[in-house]
Amino acid sequence: MKVASHLNFDVLKARAPHGKVKLTIEYDGSNFKGWQRQGQGLPSIQQTLEDILEKVLKTPVHLMGAGRTDAGVHAENQVAHFIAPKNLQGYNFVHLFQAFLPPEITIKKAELVPAHFHAQRSAVAKTYIYRIWNSSTPSGLRSKRSLWIRKPLNIERLNLAIQALVGTFDFNCFRSEGSAVKSTVRTIHWAKVEKRGDFIEFEINGDGFLKQMVRNIVGTLLQLEMGLREEESIPKLIESRNRMEAGPTVGPQGLYLARVFYPEELDILSQPL
Amino acid sequence: MKVASHLNFDVLKARAPHGKVKLTIEYDGSNFKGWQRQGQGLPSIQQTLEDILEKVLKTPVHLMGAGRTDAGVHAENQVAHFIAPKNLQGYNFVHLFQAFLPPEITIKKAELVPAHFHAQRSAVAKTYIYRIWNSSTPSGLRSKRSLWIRKPLNIERLNLAIQALVGTFDFNCFRSEGSAVKSTVRTIHWAKVEKRGDFIEFEINGDGFLKQMVRNIVGTLLQLEMGLREEESIPKLIESRNRMEAGPTVGPQGLYLARVFYPEELDILSQPL
Repeated sequence: MKVASHLNFDVLKARAPHGKVKLTIEYDGSNFKGWQRQGQGLPSIQQTLEDILEKVLKTPVHLMGAGRTDAGVHAENQVAHFIAPKNLQGYNFVHLFQAFLPPEITIKKAELVPAHFHAQRSAVAKTYIYRIWNSSTPSGLRSKRSLWIRKPLNIERLNLAIQALVGTFDFNCFRSEGSAVKSTVRTIHWAKVEKRGDFIEFEINGDGFLKQMVRNIVGTLLQLEMGLREEESIPKLIESRNRMEAGPTVGPQGLYLARVFYPEELDILSQPL
Repeated sequence: MKVASHLNFDVLKARAPHGKVKLTIEYDGSNFKGWQRQGQGLPSIQQTLEDILEKVLKTPVHLMGAGRTDAGVHAENQVAHFIAPKNLQGYNFVHLFQAFLPPEITIKKAELVPAHFHAQRSAVAKTYIYRIWNSSTPSGLRSKRSLWIRKPLNIERLNLAIQALVGTFDFNCFRSEGSAVKSTVRTIHWAKVEKRGDFIEFEINGDGFLKQMVRNIVGTLLQLEMGLREEESIPKLIESRNRMEAGPTVGPQGLYLARVFYPEELDILSQPL
């Protein structure tokens, strides 16, 4: 038995030296207090997943997420990794999790990845979507998935204004307090505002995001759309580095972590588990 | 004061003799135990609305729904009426409710209707939709809004099979136990199965539906799609009137009361409140 297990472990090591597992996770964040394991009250996504991993693998497992999401924020493709505590060949994590997880959290993919993969540090970019329900009537079915704004929004104006954020800037004016970071400089690769039926979607791709940065950007752009600020004022706002100069933080229910991007080399070396 | 109030009531009576109000309601039923006010535990939609009406109008109000929906079932356009206990001119019910309601329930329309309007008895037809998430991976964001089926479904076969239900039949085989009805004969006006992205939607319009009838129909048609029964067997199944011969009741999370239809005459006489 010991020999066989040792052999299997060698096979595993050859595929991914330290047996790291990458999970791609979708969740409806409405009934959770965010990604991060913390204190009491509602469960967190991380905690829920770690508890199941411990149950299945019979040993405590730490799950490292690509990024934190706040309470009420959703994810179409959050990414997290853990170090496999044993040979995981033959485990079907998608099915295993499905059996234990609450229905609002699903594992879409489980992959063996190289030892140097790190869900947070290897990430080269992320896409966030902020969804607005832009209709004369509110929608009970969409209320926990979007922000309701009754007044018809001018997409062209919003789409033009959001372009001022594309580039490398010190985005301190869009950073909510409460998290220590070394630098507040980030690069936004692209951003757009699109209409899909009665939804309006803000989509932003960047190399990293500060605390509540997307929600603060959307709050500021909505002020601009309502005539409370001018397109030309955005560069000055960024220059000010002053959170007080930016708009309000819009609600978490419209925010989705849509995708996390990794270097192609890591994607190529990953193998379905 | 008494005279003024009496005058106002006459104005109201002229518009709708007994001051009846029709509400069009949308809800995400996930966190409610259905429409009907009953016992303890999770609140019901009816109870939640009646409590707010009582708060706003300062008198108990009974709300009559077009039909019951089970726990976990959603509504895009449920209809209910109540008898206005006083002059309601100037009340904006859409806004009033919005201020008090949990976000999952919204009033889309409030109208003054003729005294002979009855949300349940005046209804001439209803449309129900049953939504299936037909994808190789489950979806956390869609889990409380649809039934997940991994295997790709044959839409053509389902669409053909569902046509056997169109017409006037004794649908007792699709009736779950627990509700007393005078007759189990109903007319299905039309039915179809459509693909929308990764969703498959069963849409059924009829003059009335027995307890869990749509969910039992979908369960039966899914058995057929999986090769467990033949298209030709449906008429025989209906003829049997035997619930044991039909398929299982699929989950409530995929079901939506999409629309309730009333005679045109009533629609014409209704006025926005």
